[in-house]
Amino acid sequence: MNIHRKPDLVPQSVTAGPLPGSRKVYVSPEDRADIKVPFREIALDPSANEPPVRVYDPSGPYTEDLPRIDLSAGLPRLREAWLRARRLETYRGRTLRPEDNGNVAGDKLVPPCPASVAPCRGRDNALVTQYEFARAGIITEEMIYVAARENLGREKLLEGAEQRLADGESFGASIPPFVTPEFVRDEIARGRAIIPANVNHPELEPMIIGRNFLVKINANIGNSAVTSSVAEEVEKMVWAIRWGADTVMDLSTGRNIHNIRDWILRNAPVPIGTVPIYQALEKVDGDPVKLTWEIFRDTLIEQAEQGVDYFTIHAGVRLAYVPLTAKRVTGIVSRGGSIMARWCLSHHRESFLYEHFDEICDIMRTYDVSFSLGDGLRPGSIADANDRAQFAELETLGELTKIAWEKGCQVMIEGPGHIPMHKIKVNMEKQLEECGEAPFYTLGPLTTDIAPGYDHITSGIGAAMIGWYGCAMLCYVTPKEHLGLPDRDDVKTGVITYRIAAHAADLAKGHPAAQIRDDALSRARFDFRWQDQFNLGLDPDTARLFHDETLPKEAHKVAHFCSMCGPQFCSMKITQDLRDEAAALAERDKGMAEKSAEFLQKGGKLYV
Amino acid sequence: MNIHRKPDLVPQSVTAGPLPGSRKVYVSPEDRADIKVPFREIALDPSANEPPVRVYDPSGPYTEDLPRIDLSAGLPRLREAWLRARRLETYRGRTLRPEDNGNVAGDKLVPPCPASVAPCRGRDNALVTQYEFARAGIITEEMIYVAARENLGREKLLEGAEQRLADGESFGASIPPFVTPEFVRDEIARGRAIIPANVNHPELEPMIIGRNFLVKINANIGNSAVTSSVAEEVEKMVWAIRWGADTVMDLSTGRNIHNIRDWILRNAPVPIGTVPIYQALEKVDGDPVKLTWEIFRDTLIEQAEQGVDYFTIHAGVRLAYVPLTAKRVTGIVSRGGSIMARWCLSHHRESFLYEHFDEICDIMRTYDVSFSLGDGLRPGSIADANDRAQFAELETLGELTKIAWEKGCQVMIEGPGHIPMHKIKVNMEKQLEECGEAPFYTLGPLTTDIAPGYDHITSGIGAAMIGWYGCAMLCYVTPKEHLGLPDRDDVKTGVITYRIAAHAADLAKGHPAAQIRDDALSRARFDFRWQDQFNLGLDPDTARLFHDETLPKEAHKVAHFCSMCGPQFCSMKITQDLRDEAAALAERDKGMAEKSAEFLQKGGKLYV
Repeated sequence: MNIHRKPDLVPQSVTAGPLPGSRKVYVSPEDRADIKVPFREIALDPSANEPPVRVYDPSGPYTEDLPRIDLSAGLPRLREAWLRARRLETYRGRTLRPEDNGNVAGDKLVPPCPASVAPCRGRDNALVTQYEFARAGIITEEMIYVAARENLGREKLLEGAEQRLADGESFGASIPPFVTPEFVRDEIARGRAIIPANVNHPELEPMIIGRNFLVKINANIGNSAVTSSVAEEVEKMVWAIRWGADTVMDLSTGRNIHNIRDWILRNAPVPIGTVPIYQALEKVDGDPVKLTWEIFRDTLIEQAEQGVDYFTIHAGVRLAYVPLTAKRVTGIVSRGGSIMARWCLSHHRESFLYEHFDEICDIMRTYDVSFSLGDGLRPGSIADANDRAQFAELETLGELTKIAWEKGCQVMIEGPGHIPMHKIKVNMEKQLEECGEAPFYTLGPLTTDIAPGYDHITSGIGAAMIGWYGCAMLCYVTPKEHLGLPDRDDVKTGVITYRIAAHAADLAKGHPAAQIRDDALSRARFDFRWQDQFNLGLDPDTARLFHDETLPKEAHKVAHFCSMCGPQFCSMKITQDLRDEAAALAERDKGMAEKSAEFLQKGGKLYV
Repeated sequence: MNIHRKPDLVPQSVTAGPLPGSRKVYVSPEDRADIKVPFREIALDPSANEPPVRVYDPSGPYTEDLPRIDLSAGLPRLREAWLRARRLETYRGRTLRPEDNGNVAGDKLVPPCPASVAPCRGRDNALVTQYEFARAGIITEEMIYVAARENLGREKLLEGAEQRLADGESFGASIPPFVTPEFVRDEIARGRAIIPANVNHPELEPMIIGRNFLVKINANIGNSAVTSSVAEEVEKMVWAIRWGADTVMDLSTGRNIHNIRDWILRNAPVPIGTVPIYQALEKVDGDPVKLTWEIFRDTLIEQAEQGVDYFTIHAGVRLAYVPLTAKRVTGIVSRGGSIMARWCLSHHRESFLYEHFDEICDIMRTYDVSFSLGDGLRPGSIADANDRAQFAELETLGELTKIAWEKGCQVMIEGPGHIPMHKIKVNMEKQLEECGEAPFYTLGPLTTDIAPGYDHITSGIGAAMIGWYGCAMLCYVTPKEHLGLPDRDDVKTGVITYRIAAHAADLAKGHPAAQIRDDALSRARFDFRWQDQFNLGLDPDTARLFHDETLPKEAHKVAHFCSMCGPQFCSMKITQDLRDEAAALAERDKGMAEKSAEFLQKGGKLYV
């Protein structure tokens, strides 16, 4: 390495430290002290007389109290021992080529992350993927880990869990009151859930994506030909998981694409997804016509060796479907989809992704890279929603899902796009039916096209709904969608919006533990515990800032009023007083509540 | 008036001028040249070869090309001639009292708006309200006006309107393909829609609220004991309607409450709503126990004479219901509800609003103030959603609706609050059933409690859904909800978010004209007409700003790429090229589309 390299070619630091009022805790499942599952505990004011609230935490070691972060060394390799015990093969791996980084050289070349090591892969006759282990009846450490994680570290069934589930509406999902490792194994074996976990990503804190688990969200990052650097991208990844992204997709299309991915992976505690065709296209100077199966195949191996956990593969864009998009208002809006459509039409040949799907499966199985079967023909406008092109591709994705399963691979399916509210549910139903209940992973969907600048909201509406209907993971949309590349603020806004959507979905499905946080926050609100209200929220900093804009003094943090009504006029305050009086009155009247019930029974009307 | 008064006691100016790319047009219904209905027309780039897109426009004369705004003179009184022809009585009116303005005096007293005139009212034996006219089979000018407005000025049925309706899902609504004045009359006569239009608000541009019309949104403004001034409140009103608020509620609780309302009303082209109990409470020094029917009654008349178009009346908070809230997590969160609960419990008496409901109706009929029957017991948290207290009140509101109708009044019903997604629909269904299909007007609902600082989004999700299910008007929630008073930016964010929700609902219901704007924007997007894309959006300024953050040059406004993919790699560009080629190829192959259809018919699978 050139020691005179400019400093911004190596990422130096990222945002770190705990969220306000929070601390990281690690909990080990019973009998497995070697497995340490992370949670975030939000401490409450002593006056609350309540234990800390424990929440799911995808943010990795970055939010520890005194995190020791060395980006060049990468994160601790918590899966290393588990992987070592499996019959994997370590080998020399593919040699890095100049075109892997867009042929940049000299002081423009980002160096690879020093933490990288020789890759490993599965053998032909041994179990490699979580799907294969699950089918063989074997519970992996990853499965134990995610079971504990989904239970938020609870060792036993939550009181009232069954009632919560009964009170919800899950549209035929089978959410258990308590998640056991065996349940996880069974869901993976049925193809209803995946744990994206490349054998070359030992830094990963495993997580599960499936309809019967907590709804997950993905954040997209990535540089483009126009903008951004390695330091920015690593920071965006860390920033996205800080606010709650469960997985991150690196959609880079610019220079240094291989080495930036290296830095991201070695420092990522969450699954990293990519769209390999983007890099393959870079290698042929951006001309889709020049793409070949050999270049694509090589790119798959390149990224699999680095540790990418899931690949978007647009194998459903078939030659015959391209004309179905001809009369659309917005044609093909998926980049991967349009690249493949271009290739198919130019060569007038069936897609090489579709024709070589068997071989793609073999590669992905070898590293346990999960499929994210891309929706290359997703509608890009309300006008094109649920059209024949979209559904023809979905049917093909269903066909491919079954092939991938036969090959031992984990699979999820990508979904649209732009869909008005009344056409969302049928997307979920059709996906479940066509794809044998493989997890659905949707972009939004955006419920209207008329709000550029606010598409996190147009899509957050659709995301909450499809999450409720059964979507397993929601791909975020930022305010910059359709307009530009998201910056740090946009990434945060996108993540928070999608955490809202995912949580609203969990609540509606009747997830047994989801409402705990809502209730704790509502009690804090009613008790005027302002700090607790801020800290229990998804974004304590913004909540505090907004409060302080009108009432900046520290004294107001304990005030029994807010700026909306002022000190004399607070409904919460009035109700608190009322509650005591109502109790006293009830006593005096020998049970006012009974009286009221009696009154109601008699019709309770003055005007009859 | 004191001419040495400090200038900020009189509002001097407000934001005015057209939105980017837009101009105001006025359209007269057939045979009624005297009625001029406002719309906004968004001009498109000549290359589009498309007519301007006409959109609904509640912003009043402020967005005219060269608006002549004189806040002291108030807006033109477009209803004056219509009202003059009705048998109304002009009278001297109530004398202003010091307590009406919170006893402020001297240089702290905001002067009344000079535009005010002597009030008028209906006579006992003559028709006054839109409901009475409708029941008598009479079509008012207001009905003609809103019919044209709902059709966006179309003179005849839109092509494909019936098909659009059939393609939507309206849950039993009866949206017509074309709105006639007779349809409006019929909906009002059935109680299914209202035109809030006080006889003392001649400046009003009439609008209609009902399930079979476009979904409307309300923005709340108002000062508090803690903050804000008359200039700010008038600007907030103008700002809110600029971005699309259909009605505005003035929830002021601070000083100068009467005179600030005066300035707002004389300059408001949209219906203004209030919660009269707030001002009544101010008159008794903020102590609910001191409230009396006489003070409340006097406040109703005071505000009705000023021209307030609808009153929130919390007459459903009955003594017997208060104990039902005792075990709630967040008790009573409605200010009006808690005030009345306090009063009932303290006096251990039935609510004076309930007991005097007949008299309230008489007053409101006299001025055609519409009822907004308040949901004083709405849940303030997910935990309290759909509980007995909430529904007991709703049943009473149903009872009161029928009384108000008998008295000749227009009525809508306020709804919750905090409701998880799966409990929203039953709220809509129960409201329709209990309240005889009177329009529902909901706050959000918020679908989770865990995101203070983002409650425009938690509630925007619920708002879109309940709008789809049949809610007629959505009361906005700003990012400051639960934390502080909204400023100008918050008002805009809240309004845009709720315009998204309302429009998403219109689309899903299959409103015949809703998708026109989506389609125009999508075409602009596909054609890289960036300016058109900005201007067709709900917030052109923000869209342009976001685009320019990455690509600031003017040349990029015509570029066939954006910063997301860069110049070489754009899916839209690829598809545009594809489209031409696909056409050519299809020709060459004697119909590629046919071939593909044939292929699909044969099963279209490589792997069988």
